[in-house]
Amino acid sequence: MTDDSRQHLREVKELDELLQKLFPISRSLSGLGNRETFRILKELIPLELTEYPSGTQVYDWTIPEEWRIRDAWIKSPDGERLVDYQECNLHVVGYSSPVRQRMQFADLAPHLHCLESSPEAIPYRTSYYQHNWGFCVTAAQYKRLEDAQGPFEVCIDSELKPDGAMTVGELRISGESQAEYLVSTYCCHPAMANDNLSGLLTATFLARDLLKKGKPQFSWRFVFVPETIGAIAYLQHNEATMKKLLGGLVITTCGGPGPLGYKETFLGDHLVDRAIRLAFRDRKVEPIRYSFVPDGSDERQYSSPGFRIPVASVTKDKYYEYSQYHTSLDNLDFVNGSQIAQSLAIYRDVIRVLDCNARYCSTAPWGEPQLSQRDLYPATGGGINQPSATGPDVVTTDIDAIMWVLFLSDSEYDLVTIAERADLEFARVVGAVDRLIDVGLLEKVSN
Amino acid sequence: MTDDSRQHLREVKELDELLQKLFPISRSLSGLGNRETFRILKELIPLELTEYPSGTQVYDWTIPEEWRIRDAWIKSPDGERLVDYQECNLHVVGYSSPVRQRMQFADLAPHLHCLESSPEAIPYRTSYYQHNWGFCVTAAQYKRLEDAQGPFEVCIDSELKPDGAMTVGELRISGESQAEYLVSTYCCHPAMANDNLSGLLTATFLARDLLKKGKPQFSWRFVFVPETIGAIAYLQHNEATMKKLLGGLVITTCGGPGPLGYKETFLGDHLVDRAIRLAFRDRKVEPIRYSFVPDGSDERQYSSPGFRIPVASVTKDKYYEYSQYHTSLDNLDFVNGSQIAQSLAIYRDVIRVLDCNARYCSTAPWGEPQLSQRDLYPATGGGINQPSATGPDVVTTDIDAIMWVLFLSDSEYDLVTIAERADLEFARVVGAVDRLIDVGLLEKVSN
Amino acid sequence: MTDDSRQHLREVKELDELLQKLFPISRSLSGLGNRETFRILKELIPLELTEYPSGTQVYDWTIPEEWRIRDAWIKSPDGERLVDYQECNLHVVGYSSPVRQRMQFADLAPHLHCLESSPEAIPYRTSYYQHNWGFCVTAAQYKRLEDAQGPFEVCIDSELKPDGAMTVGELRISGESQAEYLVSTYCCHPAMANDNLSGLLTATFLARDLLKKGKPQFSWRFVFVPETIGAIAYLQHNEATMKKLLGGLVITTCGGPGPLGYKETFLGDHLVDRAIRLAFRDRKVEPIRYSFVPDGSDERQYSSPGFRIPVASVTKDKYYEYSQYHTSLDNLDFVNGSQIAQSLAIYRDVIRVLDCNARYCSTAPWGEPQLSQRDLYPATGGGINQPSATGPDVVTTDIDAIMWVLFLSDSEYDLVTIAERADLEFARVVGAVDRLIDVGLLEKVSN
Repeated sequence: MTDDSRQHLREVKELDELLQKLFPISRSLSGLGNRETFRILKELIPLELTEYPSGTQVYDWTIPEEWRIRDAWIKSPDGERLVDYQECNLHVVGYSSPVRQRMQFADLAPHLHCLESSPEAIPYRTSYYQHNWGFCVTAAQYKRLEDAQGPFEVCIDSELKPDGAMTVGELRISGESQAEYLVSTYCCHPAMANDNLSGLLTATFLARDLLKKGKPQFSWRFVFVPETIGAIAYLQHNEATMKKLLGGLVITTCGGPGPLGYKETFLGDHLVDRAIRLAFRDRKVEPIRYSFVPDGSDERQYSSPGFRIPVASVTKDKYYEYSQYHTSLDNLDFVNGSQIAQSLAIYRDVIRVLDCNARYCSTAPWGEPQLSQRDLYPATGGGINQPSATGPDVVTTDIDAIMWVLFLSDSEYDLVTIAERADLEFARVVGAVDRLIDVGLLEKVSN
Repeated sequence: MTDDSRQHLREVKELDELLQKLFPISRSLSGLGNRETFRILKELIPLELTEYPSGTQVYDWTIPEEWRIRDAWIKSPDGERLVDYQECNLHVVGYSSPVRQRMQFADLAPHLHCLESSPEAIPYRTSYYQHNWGFCVTAAQYKRLEDAQGPFEVCIDSELKPDGAMTVGELRISGESQAEYLVSTYCCHPAMANDNLSGLLTATFLARDLLKKGKPQFSWRFVFVPETIGAIAYLQHNEATMKKLLGGLVITTCGGPGPLGYKETFLGDHLVDRAIRLAFRDRKVEPIRYSFVPDGSDERQYSSPGFRIPVASVTKDKYYEYSQYHTSLDNLDFVNGSQIAQSLAIYRDVIRVLDCNARYCSTAPWGEPQLSQRDLYPATGGGINQPSATGPDVVTTDIDAIMWVLFLSDSEYDLVTIAERADLEFARVVGAVDRLIDVGLLEKVSN
Repeated sequence: MTDDSRQHLREVKELDELLQKLFPISRSLSGLGNRETFRILKELIPLELTEYPSGTQVYDWTIPEEWRIRDAWIKSPDGERLVDYQECNLHVVGYSSPVRQRMQFADLAPHLHCLESSPEAIPYRTSYYQHNWGFCVTAAQYKRLEDAQGPFEVCIDSELKPDGAMTVGELRISGESQAEYLVSTYCCHPAMANDNLSGLLTATFLARDLLKKGKPQFSWRFVFVPETIGAIAYLQHNEATMKKLLGGLVITTCGGPGPLGYKETFLGDHLVDRAIRLAFRDRKVEPIRYSFVPDGSDERQYSSPGFRIPVASVTKDKYYEYSQYHTSLDNLDFVNGSQIAQSLAIYRDVIRVLDCNARYCSTAPWGEPQLSQRDLYPATGGGINQPSATGPDVVTTDIDAIMWVLFLSDSEYDLVTIAERADLEFARVVGAVDRLIDVGLLEKVSN
């Protein structure tokens, strides 16, 4: 077993353990479950937490009251818990107001949500901005309630604190340049694994990678927020900075058993898109392509007219596209560490491409430099397909990469363009750049 | 029967009656038939008529003498009219000089035109700029003349008036903006229905539509001229204005039984082209596509280097493409009001697209505005494919349109681009714009 | 037999005779064989020769010592010449140092080159920049040496003159404009016919053509240099001029029996590329398309970042693509005058397109000019597909060309663009331009 595969297994195991730990926690727009989630992630990366007070105006929105929930149930007259929040935190509609009432089925029914299309599933429902309460149940539970004799004892032991707060986490990794990329993910969904424990863990691992390496070229801003309202609040609190971002990634639903996918930025051919396509191309994976639509995750906020940050997502069972989406079936039978590791590998490559990308300038641009004098080219000429094996320790694809890099390095072409144009793996292009810098034939153009 | 289909039937009937009325009139570059045609059209729209005096220099051309014709025939020695202008005004070559002569077949033959490829047809011929005379006959008539015993009595009772004039009609509908589109058609062809009674009637009806509605956004200039020389003369008399036009339509041959077609502007992707493609797309009609070539109708003049007005045509049996073209078979058996109404429907949509097109700007561009507060989005979240039916009176495609319009409304994208990019019907995009203006989320960017 | 085919036969015969004369001469980076080659070419065109002294620094390179070779052999102990330079000058590795030694096979073997993949072939090898010596032999010769009893008498009667020089030839044909195109070919390969006698002869014939005609519109610079070092040295000696060149052609390997090909410029859609594609299109030949790669011939130098001259090649059995490449089998069985004549024909057209290309301006740009008054259009109108045969001596495609040229001649479109857009043969477009200039309707826009 190689070091690489040993490390891969270690990583998969770590992901699986974290999935187990994080899955049962009750997350929402705000509340104790979110803080507990952040506490666990802080064991991996030094997230900075900020609390946005309830009632604060953020652009067109208001930070909602903090929601706390302790327990909830529907009991039969004989005290049996027919629906029990302790079994699954999806049973309660997110942001349900407190209730404690005896009621007949007819009065209860308007507060029940179930899915006819997926009878074993408990659906995921929220009512963030309109005071309401409700239970989400399987079709069997619904039937049982309908058939049972009332009255039922209905309890939601929750609280909506006007003096509460919404918690967001962030981590800024400072690079050689203050020019900055964004990696954002969301933490507001309760017990669902693909949407979005997969994203939380992927973002966390990517941040940890970057921290382990030396100083990156660019700065990288990792943002962990409740979806929509959290991203909007974060944008308002960091407006000037966010308007200058180079681009970014929104990490969501990337741990399912299905094929890898990629949702484009709103521009479709931004450097972020090209980096993602190179990463897939170099791994010889053809992702499902999703065109940009203004319906999805926090690209809706980051790419809005006021900010226009081009952000894209790599997915594995993208939201909307799998039948378990937004139900209790999006669970740990559906998602595992090994699947998340596949998305993680692509994202790592994407970040490497973006962070390594630069423009270079040949120091000997008039005709070709004499490579054979620098042990970069065979000394005996004339061999079929010139650059042959009779030369120094330079294999053909390396010579190809060296020649392409030298040919295009006129300060205009960046490495991404060179890798695309030459149809060479990005890593080889970077390798050629390193060799040419070593022998003094190339200089980096400052950003 | 719906109001719409009742109105459609009324319109078809009106078109058919006008076809009957206009078909027999002798039209040419100039003359009484043209004035009679304009008199009838003035009953529908307030055309302003201008007379360009014969002999006037217009760019590289000269307005020709006015041609008047009363009668023409070829009689056998016993007085029988073997060819009779009263039966069909195509029998005489347009602009024939007066003739009154006895002659044998051998001398007559060079003045006879017939079509071997279409023996029952009388061809359409003119000799505008070279004094000449001639008769157009069917193959049977030609044979009969050839076989008959002469001499024939040949008479063309015509007149070429050096002090005459060429009549053009125009109608300018002033919009909120003085920026102007052109709709041009030609009135110089005698008894042929597709070429170009169909165009005359379509242009007339489009003008009447615009007059009925409120003030349009743009100004619209309708021009009714003899083809080529008329358009050139009009350009000279309105040079400064015509150089500033936004684009336009040349309406010709749009009433045949064949499929709808579309000839591109010389630019191929001008807003006029895109409006036409949207109109066809939204009606789910795939037109025959004709690339621009500088051979055709008055796009040759309007798009010439000195003016470069991008003009396109919607056709139904385009000139050159049907076997009855430029013969007596292009008649009321070939063309009817119901067929013209199909082209009219497309043209109406094209004008609506062009006239509604504008750029808008979101008033809440930082992240998304909170649509649910404005009854534009469901209040309960989490439903599969988010915007669900559990919300207010907003169907999914409306939400899509609202979200696309908000996302793209940064003063850069116009509605045509939004409809293209979002693949949404233009009418839905306009609907979304209207709702968003109502709730104060959108403002029009002044042109 | 037509004049054209008689001239073609004459040309093929001349090419064949020159192939015979030039094939056996020993060429290299420098030396007497190169000077003899130039002497023969000077009988056809007035090449100017320049000697670049050995030891001169040219950018990153140094002009090597001049190599002279008189004889070379490997003799058996009984004096039999087992390998004999007099039989084939490929037997000696280019730039071999002088040797005169008795040695056993074990010591000789590292100096022997043969091709297992092509046992009858003598490979072509050089060692320009590292002092060394060697023999290239067939597999049979290698075997015979291996089996024979030594010691062998090994002799390379060569000389490396530090006070020598490298010879280059050039010819500048001055045009009306000082703006200049490049035609470059290389003269450094010994007895191989496709690589690159075919290129030498093609370039020579093209230069002779241009000299025979009147003054061209543009200036044309023909350059005959040793590949790589020669091109680099030439660039340094003509730096300011070469940085301004419009584009050019690198002529190489264009005389094989295979299909015609075309290697793009590094830009891919430069005017040089478009001229080549038009030339092939008009001859209805579909060439093999080779994308630009920075591995090939002297485009590596001319298009390098410091110069960026867009150069392309038309090939017939392109280097790397045929099995005889860089061996003794690239000989006069493989190449002949008739094959070279095919490439020559394409190149002639390419030069004609580039040299005729210009922008024109209509003198009557407002609407169409009245063509019928100038005998460019039929006087009787109305015929089906308007421009008919009943008019003057103008066939339909001529009218098409006239109308396209007039329509597009607004000083923006050049003739290459017109020929592409109208899908008309370049020669017809030029014909239309000539007629329109004759009647005063067109003026050339100065470059």
